[in-house]
Amino acid sequence: MFQRKHLLGIEGLKREEIDHILDVADSMVEVSKRSVKKVPALRGKTVVNLFFEPSTRTRISFEVAAKRLSADLINFSGSTSSLSKGESFRDTVLNLEAMHPDIFVVRHGAAGAPDYLTTFSDCSVVNAGDGFHEHPTQALLDALTMRQHKGKLDDLKITIVGDILHSRVARSNIFLLTRYNTRVVLSGPPPLVPEEFINMGVEIEYNLDKAVENSDVVMMLRIQKERQTGSFFPSIREYRKYYQLNKERLKKADKDAIVMHPGPINRGIELMKEIADSERSVILNQVSNGIAVRMAVLYLISGGGDEINN
Amino acid sequence: MFQRKHLLGIEGLKREEIDHILDVADSMVEVSKRSVKKVPALRGKTVVNLFFEPSTRTRISFEVAAKRLSADLINFSGSTSSLSKGESFRDTVLNLEAMHPDIFVVRHGAAGAPDYLTTFSDCSVVNAGDGFHEHPTQALLDALTMRQHKGKLDDLKITIVGDILHSRVARSNIFLLTRYNTRVVLSGPPPLVPEEFINMGVEIEYNLDKAVENSDVVMMLRIQKERQTGSFFPSIREYRKYYQLNKERLKKADKDAIVMHPGPINRGIELMKEIADSERSVILNQVSNGIAVRMAVLYLISGGGDEINN
Amino acid sequence: MFQRKHLLGIEGLKREEIDHILDVADSMVEVSKRSVKKVPALRGKTVVNLFFEPSTRTRISFEVAAKRLSADLINFSGSTSSLSKGESFRDTVLNLEAMHPDIFVVRHGAAGAPDYLTTFSDCSVVNAGDGFHEHPTQALLDALTMRQHKGKLDDLKITIVGDILHSRVARSNIFLLTRYNTRVVLSGPPPLVPEEFINMGVEIEYNLDKAVENSDVVMMLRIQKERQTGSFFPSIREYRKYYQLNKERLKKADKDAIVMHPGPINRGIELMKEIADSERSVILNQVSNGIAVRMAVLYLISGGGDEINN
Repeated sequence: MFQRKHLLGIEGLKREEIDHILDVADSMVEVSKRSVKKVPALRGKTVVNLFFEPSTRTRISFEVAAKRLSADLINFSGSTSSLSKGESFRDTVLNLEAMHPDIFVVRHGAAGAPDYLTTFSDCSVVNAGDGFHEHPTQALLDALTMRQHKGKLDDLKITIVGDILHSRVARSNIFLLTRYNTRVVLSGPPPLVPEEFINMGVEIEYNLDKAVENSDVVMMLRIQKERQTGSFFPSIREYRKYYQLNKERLKKADKDAIVMHPGPINRGIELMKEIADSERSVILNQVSNGIAVRMAVLYLISGGGDEINN
Repeated sequence: MFQRKHLLGIEGLKREEIDHILDVADSMVEVSKRSVKKVPALRGKTVVNLFFEPSTRTRISFEVAAKRLSADLINFSGSTSSLSKGESFRDTVLNLEAMHPDIFVVRHGAAGAPDYLTTFSDCSVVNAGDGFHEHPTQALLDALTMRQHKGKLDDLKITIVGDILHSRVARSNIFLLTRYNTRVVLSGPPPLVPEEFINMGVEIEYNLDKAVENSDVVMMLRIQKERQTGSFFPSIREYRKYYQLNKERLKKADKDAIVMHPGPINRGIELMKEIADSERSVILNQVSNGIAVRMAVLYLISGGGDEINN
Repeated sequence: MFQRKHLLGIEGLKREEIDHILDVADSMVEVSKRSVKKVPALRGKTVVNLFFEPSTRTRISFEVAAKRLSADLINFSGSTSSLSKGESFRDTVLNLEAMHPDIFVVRHGAAGAPDYLTTFSDCSVVNAGDGFHEHPTQALLDALTMRQHKGKLDDLKITIVGDILHSRVARSNIFLLTRYNTRVVLSGPPPLVPEEFINMGVEIEYNLDKAVENSDVVMMLRIQKERQTGSFFPSIREYRKYYQLNKERLKKADKDAIVMHPGPINRGIELMKEIADSERSVILNQVSNGIAVRMAVLYLISGGGDEINN
């Protein structure tokens, strides 16, 4: 059972808690397929999207999730606030909290900002991405997508490719997947996949051709072009040559392998265009599952019981 | 009967379909005059305002319309999205669609963008203005306004004045009005009113004094000052002299003629200030009717039946 | 009884009207503490946040208040509107009014803008801050906070410190507090606290140590660093020395004195950090009361009766 007040990261969660969130998310998937896509579970609750980093996609995903639960949703963007007048993060949060919201959904450039928030706020907190630390709802939606397609999270080979070092998505996925009896292999340019990651219970295989062999899931990460400095990787052309998922490489994976990406895709860089649009790609399922997982998380941290529909 | 899934333009519509939208809009006018301005018709539906061109007025009009129908409304603005990270229009739409919205309201600088969207999306689409192509809800609200004041759309003389060439408002109005047995006369500087428009079933009269003679409706378009390049028109002063609707000119129209403008007005340029604020002006009725027409369109493309209030 | 259509300022209000708003606000405080923080009082009403000056905090406070009353809330920001195309304030308002909203909440850099709006609009208007003129809901939330902590608004000594000259908050507070049998003392650098204020029924004491003596309430105003020009005050260091509320000075106030601030605070400038976070500070209560007061005002100007919950 998941009975926490916050979702700050995957790191502290037990396998049973993750399973519970995914089970509730399964029923939320069904809500978004109805004609009337709305349940009254969070009526009269106020959810604040507290985004100190711009992210239209994640913000809208939480906004849709909150509204389908009948919550009131307030968008607060750090860049347009009185932060520019020098007010601190803490003062901003305390001021908003004084308006009696129920849940803060926090995205912040600094790792640990959501955890810090819980030290002085009484509201529930969902981490929507903090620095290079965690992005737990992304890992949960990824897990939900794998479970839908593979029927399980155990006994799989999952290959994660790209800039692992700077990826909160990768970190949250590693925390989650290592709860299961499943093989996680990291690949990418060595400066972006340091050997220390082995301590997290995963394997590293710098040769992408070998890394994808017999994989059930190939998860490509977005390459940040601004990292193309020579110290991380020399050029987009080189990156594409060694780390792009193309048709040849995908053939080495399991014949039913699925391809994932947290988006937005750099088409033709980390992922060949044809693959992004192929049947193998479950990238848009990930987006759909984002709504379901966020509905489940908002519902559960609000103390939601088993009766979603009443 | 209007039973389409999309409203992409006026061009393909039959007269009966237009009449049906306007009839439903008549009942929506009444909703906005109630004390409780809300009907549950679209409860549990998600409408996305997908605006790749800034337009506060049209965006808010659709937002108010959607909320009065009890829909959940998500605003997405192209300029603040991950478009800046290079994501394509198609990827943006597919990502949003994966969140299971019901209707996309699309404004885009490129003609045909809403039509293109329907080729890869399963959602309903309303064109809220695309390049120099169409702005169908504007033409419908204009027609509703004329019908309210003239009791009909047949047997009128309607004069449209200004930059016809670059006006999606004019194009949609021409497509609509030529469905009726009514006289449509275009006027404006010759480079902005090319003779080819005659092929659309309208007349051209470059002399504004003659054009407005006995008109039942004079529709002034907004002049874009950035067109003042010499090739389109030489100066604001010249434009005002030959193409401003002033009191003298309005006297030549029918004694009950109404003056329309899609807004925002350049007061004192295309329209004399006194006329904009006079009883002849129905400009604010157009804005009110915008809500009603957009409610009607959102309702009808959602498969709305005759029972708006239950 | 408060039975007005607008709340433009405190200046014209009777004591009974203020008491009535505060009484209704008391019951609204209770709504925000419920599990379901929502009453249907304004269902089907449209409230427009019409902000021509940026203010995330006040805008969100009105947004939360409107949503807890079940109203539809539309945010309109002056800077992103067609104002940049030259449309006038009046045209902007008339266009929005044609969409049949019920209430305009107006913030504007020009004193009198909300009053002017009522001369051509039929909607209810709430002044959310206009130039150096008034900010009535701030004064009401301040009064509610004082009444909660002191049990009354009569027989108090209230000291207001800082840039009185440029503060609409101070002006509205002075108008309100002088309705009661209470002592209001202003303090701050002489160029920012001109003697003319005495005509409003208050005292002036430039020596802050004397001004706070036996005060029941010390209200600190935010210093605008851009006023540090020599003509208003010479330096932040000088300001801090003579006009910061620090522990020593606060000891001179009544032993149960409360410290107020409209926010956002310049910690360490007008207010010592330790005091802002101490038990004496009611700054976050002010923010909470902001929701309650705004709910009360929106409710009352909509003609709300005694039955808030049905």
